[in-house]
Amino acid sequence: MGIENRIFNKDLLSKITTADEAAKLIKDGMIVGASGFTPCGYPKCVPLALAKRIKEGEKIRIGLYTGASVGVELDEALAEVNAISKRLPYQTGKIINKRINDGDMLYLDIHLSQSAQQLRYGFLGKMDVCIVEAVCIMENGGIVPSTSVGNTPTFIQEADKVIVEINTSQPMELVGMSDIFIPADPPVRHPIPITDVSQRIGTPYMPCDPRKIVAIVECDITDKTRPLGALDEESKAMASHLIDFLKSVYGNKLPPLQSGVGDVANAVMAGLVHSDFENLKCWTEVIQDSMLDLIDIGKLTAVSGTSLSPSPDGLKRFYDKIKEYRNKIVLRPQEISNNAEMARRLGVVAMNTALEVDIYGNSNSTHMFGTRMVNGIGGSGDFSRNAGLTVMLTPSVAKRGAISRVVPHVAHYDHTEHEIHVIVTEQGVADLRGLDPKEKVPVIIEKCAHPDYRDMLWDYYNRAKKEVGGHIPMLLDEAYSWHVRFNETGTMKM
Amino acid sequence: MGIENRIFNKDLLSKITTADEAAKLIKDGMIVGASGFTPCGYPKCVPLALAKRIKEGEKIRIGLYTGASVGVELDEALAEVNAISKRLPYQTGKIINKRINDGDMLYLDIHLSQSAQQLRYGFLGKMDVCIVEAVCIMENGGIVPSTSVGNTPTFIQEADKVIVEINTSQPMELVGMSDIFIPADPPVRHPIPITDVSQRIGTPYMPCDPRKIVAIVECDITDKTRPLGALDEESKAMASHLIDFLKSVYGNKLPPLQSGVGDVANAVMAGLVHSDFENLKCWTEVIQDSMLDLIDIGKLTAVSGTSLSPSPDGLKRFYDKIKEYRNKIVLRPQEISNNAEMARRLGVVAMNTALEVDIYGNSNSTHMFGTRMVNGIGGSGDFSRNAGLTVMLTPSVAKRGAISRVVPHVAHYDHTEHEIHVIVTEQGVADLRGLDPKEKVPVIIEKCAHPDYRDMLWDYYNRAKKEVGGHIPMLLDEAYSWHVRFNETGTMKM
Repeated sequence: MGIENRIFNKDLLSKITTADEAAKLIKDGMIVGASGFTPCGYPKCVPLALAKRIKEGEKIRIGLYTGASVGVELDEALAEVNAISKRLPYQTGKIINKRINDGDMLYLDIHLSQSAQQLRYGFLGKMDVCIVEAVCIMENGGIVPSTSVGNTPTFIQEADKVIVEINTSQPMELVGMSDIFIPADPPVRHPIPITDVSQRIGTPYMPCDPRKIVAIVECDITDKTRPLGALDEESKAMASHLIDFLKSVYGNKLPPLQSGVGDVANAVMAGLVHSDFENLKCWTEVIQDSMLDLIDIGKLTAVSGTSLSPSPDGLKRFYDKIKEYRNKIVLRPQEISNNAEMARRLGVVAMNTALEVDIYGNSNSTHMFGTRMVNGIGGSGDFSRNAGLTVMLTPSVAKRGAISRVVPHVAHYDHTEHEIHVIVTEQGVADLRGLDPKEKVPVIIEKCAHPDYRDMLWDYYNRAKKEVGGHIPMLLDEAYSWHVRFNETGTMKM
Repeated sequence: MGIENRIFNKDLLSKITTADEAAKLIKDGMIVGASGFTPCGYPKCVPLALAKRIKEGEKIRIGLYTGASVGVELDEALAEVNAISKRLPYQTGKIINKRINDGDMLYLDIHLSQSAQQLRYGFLGKMDVCIVEAVCIMENGGIVPSTSVGNTPTFIQEADKVIVEINTSQPMELVGMSDIFIPADPPVRHPIPITDVSQRIGTPYMPCDPRKIVAIVECDITDKTRPLGALDEESKAMASHLIDFLKSVYGNKLPPLQSGVGDVANAVMAGLVHSDFENLKCWTEVIQDSMLDLIDIGKLTAVSGTSLSPSPDGLKRFYDKIKEYRNKIVLRPQEISNNAEMARRLGVVAMNTALEVDIYGNSNSTHMFGTRMVNGIGGSGDFSRNAGLTVMLTPSVAKRGAISRVVPHVAHYDHTEHEIHVIVTEQGVADLRGLDPKEKVPVIIEKCAHPDYRDMLWDYYNRAKKEVGGHIPMLLDEAYSWHVRFNETGTMKM
């Protein structure tokens, strides 16, 4: 079908080129920005062409900045050829993950709402090029994002050059779904003028000086979104506990919901399908399948996020009824979707998953045993610190019970007891609001820990209280003994 | 002089009573709010009367909620008689500190900006009474705060009954210095309409239904503010390093400054007196002596905080030239002064002190050796997460070198590597902006650690990298070995 009819600025038609030619604009040592937030709306053809060149022997390593994780054609293809020297602010993928943990790649784990402003503030170096997947280019050079917005508006503003991939698998009906607003920087920053989830305050395109656009490439590779796991009993139990708890706190009128990425988050939203909540709204990062279900049955009336992130089936459903969904969904820059100002103003209920929590209510969301990066902190810190109610979810055990996810002391700290109000496992809900650390311990152990580990947690706590005391009793030489035991014996159990 | 001429609502004259009578309104088991933030603007006569009754044998224990720490007549007097069952959100004082660490008192360490809304949201129970130090009472019942605002506006709104202490040592010229604005709660919360430090958006008094005022007491006890330590060489060196660094980042135009409580913070501001910065503004919590110095020499043009907290000498100076200072200073509720929305909008430089930091740039600001509460997280989390630039300051060693304040792994986490941009010790400045964890290590060790501990830190890190690897190399069984060694031998040194 060609992309000429998606380029409304006719001067830019001369910039149409091949992915191979466009990829040549990426040089060794550059900082490259790319659109994309989860495997949605990221460039595909140009990164694949770049990876091919490197595979054929050219030496290129780049800093790669995106909105969050992206799809395999970008992160995995470039990580495979070890072409990424520095990566931020979030990632998912076997190969890239191994590169990070093997020390082949630097990785900055930044609160997602802060990455764009840190680039503008000069903390992250000068961006040379950015590659943007687009639906179309407006007459004024404005670029319409496809299935995610992420950090792209700021990347376009900050990069010297812009490469556009017009993706013909992304329907033109996406035009009008995004709302692009970049806050001015201090000292002239103004309030973000949003007081309701569905409010629009910006433009439907990402402003771009057309002279910056150095190449336009046609692409038809579809978003490689990830299939969702089947709803397991554990996730269903967590969802059910949490929904009952929310009902007890808010009655029938829930604040806007933020729900993290992945199966557990999707299960929570799925649990709402069969609840009697009505008029739900989501102020969140990513829009997953169960939100589409909730829209379909009329329970979810407005969703604001920075990315669609449905399963392959969900994406097909979305495309099929795009005009309908578009009325309910706004995609915003992650600087807005995840902004502290907005989470606090709207009083969102923030629901994110932890790798492990401890008896005092701290959480580790990123580093297995303190060391191995899993994905990243993502937006969880943006929301957890500023939400009206902050909930962390985790199954009580992993590896068939060999790992307790409730431990004496988490091995890495992402969210502290100062901001976590509620912990949910399949065992139950620990309501920590208004509790002192020592009041939290019994609630977390009895409501959230797996029964196999409760006595061990009590033993640790009782000895810490007796032997050390203080505001937060802690045995320094045993704090990580559970983690050490697992490494030595394959189980945290004694 | 009497207080009748400070009560402009003449119906309320009938409520004038003694401190002893007013104190009888406080019953066992109540939740009591009190004005005050640092030893400024807290009630004195009624708490002393209450403490006296308890000393004489009456059994009363209360939950005590304030803005932050308060003066000895409140916290220490009541802690001495073990009359506080639960305390929030911050404290300072030998007796109260011992009560917390001995387990005699529950203590909730809450981000200061969030305490008022948590009370309104129902997380902290129902407030029975609040005791407010005031300059005067307006005709409409509105109460004019004295030297701090803190959480008092919300306490007045939430408490069933209000006891007012009109303090005649607080001059009437304080009227007009405060700007009271309580944000509406979600879903009808609007942007905080402040875009500049000195902007006023509210009323000069704290609104109060006059029917809630059940007692008015005359008091003339002065604020027991704390003397500042002499500027030591260590603090001067930290200030000098930081000021040089700020110059390199911002040139001559600094963003609004937030500066924590205490001697180090005061030293940093004092360092600015002799710098060539002009037109400084502070968006901060507490207003200390060196800010008055900066106003005196015309370098500081506007200060917004929630409390005056000068030394006794500084307070005298302030009173002497109150009309002049009042033009430059706005006191706001801590929900506004510390609000995430404001810190981010204004792009403040947040400067707070740590107890210890680790080689990856995490900080412990509250718990000695993970266990013993010092003061609390206070507002440091409000600012550090949301500032334009986040700085943590700490001397490199304590106890004459026996404790390194740069350790392999901090024993308690208040601020994480995700949000700390700069660490300053008397040794130098570690600029961590844009660095991956493994890039941070050499910078922190070489620029900030004390030379006596550098080899030990390198040894830990190199072995962790070799033996464990990963994104954040960590030796689980040695993470706290330095703290353990100190407990066993009296020094962290080998």
